[in-house]
Amino acid sequence: MCKGEHHQWPLSTGSKLLSITRTIETVSRLRCIACGATPNSAGQDFRCTACGDLLEFFFPGWTLDPLLSDPTSLKSLWLNRRTSSDALDQSGVWRFRELLPHIPNLEEHAITLREGNTPLYRLPRCARAAGVENLQAKHQGMNPTASFKDTGMTFAASSAHQSGFRWVACASTGNTSASMAAYAARGNMHSLVLIPEGKISWGKLSQSLDYGALTCQLRTDFDGCVQILNDLVRQKPVYLLNSVNPYRIEGQKTAAIELMEQLAWQPPDHIIVPGGNLGNSSAIGKALLEMRELKLISRLPKLSIIQAHGANPFYRSVREFGGKKLEPMTADTLATAIRIGNPASWKKALRVLQATGGEVEEVTELEIAAAKAEIGADGIGCEPASAVTLAGLKKLRQSGFVKPAEAVVLILTGHLLKDPDFTIKFHRGDLFADAAVAGAPDETEAAKAKYLQRAPVVLDANLAAVIAALDAAERNS
Amino acid sequence: MCKGEHHQWPLSTGSKLLSITRTIETVSRLRCIACGATPNSAGQDFRCTACGDLLEFFFPGWTLDPLLSDPTSLKSLWLNRRTSSDALDQSGVWRFRELLPHIPNLEEHAITLREGNTPLYRLPRCARAAGVENLQAKHQGMNPTASFKDTGMTFAASSAHQSGFRWVACASTGNTSASMAAYAARGNMHSLVLIPEGKISWGKLSQSLDYGALTCQLRTDFDGCVQILNDLVRQKPVYLLNSVNPYRIEGQKTAAIELMEQLAWQPPDHIIVPGGNLGNSSAIGKALLEMRELKLISRLPKLSIIQAHGANPFYRSVREFGGKKLEPMTADTLATAIRIGNPASWKKALRVLQATGGEVEEVTELEIAAAKAEIGADGIGCEPASAVTLAGLKKLRQSGFVKPAEAVVLILTGHLLKDPDFTIKFHRGDLFADAAVAGAPDETEAAKAKYLQRAPVVLDANLAAVIAALDAAERNS
Repeated sequence: MCKGEHHQWPLSTGSKLLSITRTIETVSRLRCIACGATPNSAGQDFRCTACGDLLEFFFPGWTLDPLLSDPTSLKSLWLNRRTSSDALDQSGVWRFRELLPHIPNLEEHAITLREGNTPLYRLPRCARAAGVENLQAKHQGMNPTASFKDTGMTFAASSAHQSGFRWVACASTGNTSASMAAYAARGNMHSLVLIPEGKISWGKLSQSLDYGALTCQLRTDFDGCVQILNDLVRQKPVYLLNSVNPYRIEGQKTAAIELMEQLAWQPPDHIIVPGGNLGNSSAIGKALLEMRELKLISRLPKLSIIQAHGANPFYRSVREFGGKKLEPMTADTLATAIRIGNPASWKKALRVLQATGGEVEEVTELEIAAAKAEIGADGIGCEPASAVTLAGLKKLRQSGFVKPAEAVVLILTGHLLKDPDFTIKFHRGDLFADAAVAGAPDETEAAKAKYLQRAPVVLDANLAAVIAALDAAERNS
Repeated sequence: MCKGEHHQWPLSTGSKLLSITRTIETVSRLRCIACGATPNSAGQDFRCTACGDLLEFFFPGWTLDPLLSDPTSLKSLWLNRRTSSDALDQSGVWRFRELLPHIPNLEEHAITLREGNTPLYRLPRCARAAGVENLQAKHQGMNPTASFKDTGMTFAASSAHQSGFRWVACASTGNTSASMAAYAARGNMHSLVLIPEGKISWGKLSQSLDYGALTCQLRTDFDGCVQILNDLVRQKPVYLLNSVNPYRIEGQKTAAIELMEQLAWQPPDHIIVPGGNLGNSSAIGKALLEMRELKLISRLPKLSIIQAHGANPFYRSVREFGGKKLEPMTADTLATAIRIGNPASWKKALRVLQATGGEVEEVTELEIAAAKAEIGADGIGCEPASAVTLAGLKKLRQSGFVKPAEAVVLILTGHLLKDPDFTIKFHRGDLFADAAVAGAPDETEAAKAKYLQRAPVVLDANLAAVIAALDAAERNS
């Protein structure tokens, strides 16, 4: 039985396919991304003991596995699991478990909230605004805790459970902690959250409290929280759930697999991802490369990464130093989910950028706010960090990197409800007035977004007043 | 093509089943729930022109339809649609369209955000707290706009589109407006929202702004907003999307169908639903009765309805007047989604209660807050109104109406992120201090929930402080 869910409704459909005998268990190994060392297991901090860089999973056994050499069978196995009533099959992560590292006694340790299975939406108004014909958004904010973090967390929390940990921990700008706290609770583990004081959204804080985490607001920034956490896990039996944990990256891979399935395995020309700590870009890129290796797709989309101007260390690394080094910075942007000055996974992301031929871009606070309102007007809604993708797409169109007829998929990472304050302040017109953020527009500049603002109207409770408001809106529409 | 989504990824699986020829188009008719009149169409206010009461759909053609007389075929048709890549098949509402009224030229008018498909979760800690062995929650807060309203809105908004309306409107405590604004935007319609000033959560207000609604905050309560809206739709070509609209009820029915599928068509003993405007209870009950009629299930679960003490007109109607009348009241509860004093669908809900043998209950503000924290501790999370179900279950257990071994399903109606303020204030310990709400506990009483509170800890950024906090939590765990 997997944690947090028991299989109460045995349905038989699909079970024949599910029981295809795997003659060879997929072998997964860890490898250092810098020095290439292949340790048998990872330390508490998930760093290479030889050189200190990040570890990643690779799969030397794939070539020996008959199922993995048969893309058609794999695709129908995954498709048919959609009709299964098993909790793991119903998860958009575990449905693709053939491409994930092996976790022993999975049925006993898997913790799932039925993550993944996120929709792919057309964005007709945004497409017009960006000047492309074929624009879709994969909305990872439709996960259970309302951000993409759930896809990695289900896998990494299950690994923590399998390893027998009682405590899990992370440093977070808010989304990771919300997700971790939920999965820890489902798996009967305790969770410790380190967040920068005063710098995460109310909504995200409410989640870690509700799910029962021990929530510590530290008087520092995200990168300061990461440092303390790294010291902590070396001294205490606490499982590290930050994105340096390679299990998180593996779980997050599945978003790209699911996307390709939704596109009938025909890759788009471009995938555009927000760039914060850069774990998500790394995961999506890793999945694309692995899917091509397994002949699940025949060509690679270009994966591009967009950062906020006030938190652009990766952009600067690529543009100024050709990716040879990354200079940490003090990050500052209203898109709190990507307010990160020293991104852990920058080398992994760089590799993906180079392998797929993608581009980096940076966008201003005003561009983010405008793009967010445009996505909302398409009836979708997302948190500010997700909107950098549309803002970035506009720039990539202007530069000619994206052509009008090319197919583009934006990865939206968080739900609108993750940061309602931002939305309300934007529409009320005081988002930038209150904020002292690097790159925030002055009054004249901010006024350019006025046409997107839809402030609420306060009226007396009478019919005539409402009809007047309706008529005015009709005239302006 | 349905609005808001084009079918870009033609997959063949399941299409054979989908094209089963329907020899007889399901005939749906409208009927007044009070006088039994069967008008050919509904007026702008969706009221019976003879007696002014609510209308509902019924299906005299069902008995003539060979597919609907064959529950096994219906079940496998619906199951197999899960493997389809068609946007309508991927919706947890439209997947069950055989049981919904016919909308002409559906492909052209359907507006979907891939609503429904919501998870059914075990609640192990809550089960212990309530004293039952088999407790699950169907989480309708996992819908695209984070509340159950989406299931009804996709259907009713499509009907508005088919009827050629440019404007749709609703009065709302917040969830309806969020949902309506999103679907209107997807369908290229304008939306008008009437909400009581200062009495909806920040998150919900942010949604209607983001999705582009004309949002009017009226200086009155929800029931006052409803009154003005009813007057408005008689004067202006505006489509009414409140829950008196019977299309909304039809869409919401599908949650119960999906639930039965998840339970392998074995009904639980009890389904427990929050009671606000009572459209949701009505819809779920209607679906249960229809599923029994079509032999999709062989027996009825008892459907019970829980209200907040400060907004309990239906509870009082049943307990004090035997359901013979309902006395409207001024509603007052921190569970804003059910702060409704004059519920539109009370007669429909009463019928359901009587037909299934369910019960009504009321719960206090403290009971709601405690139940919400308990659901959160199970790693799920919901908005306050959803938590009345667990609080009510406890009372139904105490009264003996629910037996320890009986299977119970709670309907959670909204996501945790719909009202983060409530959560943060509860855990910080000042939820009731700030509130002047009927039935709120005094200080001594409120202290009883202290053991559930998990206030964030603010610390200097040093390792020793974090370790001390961790050790303290470990000692208390």
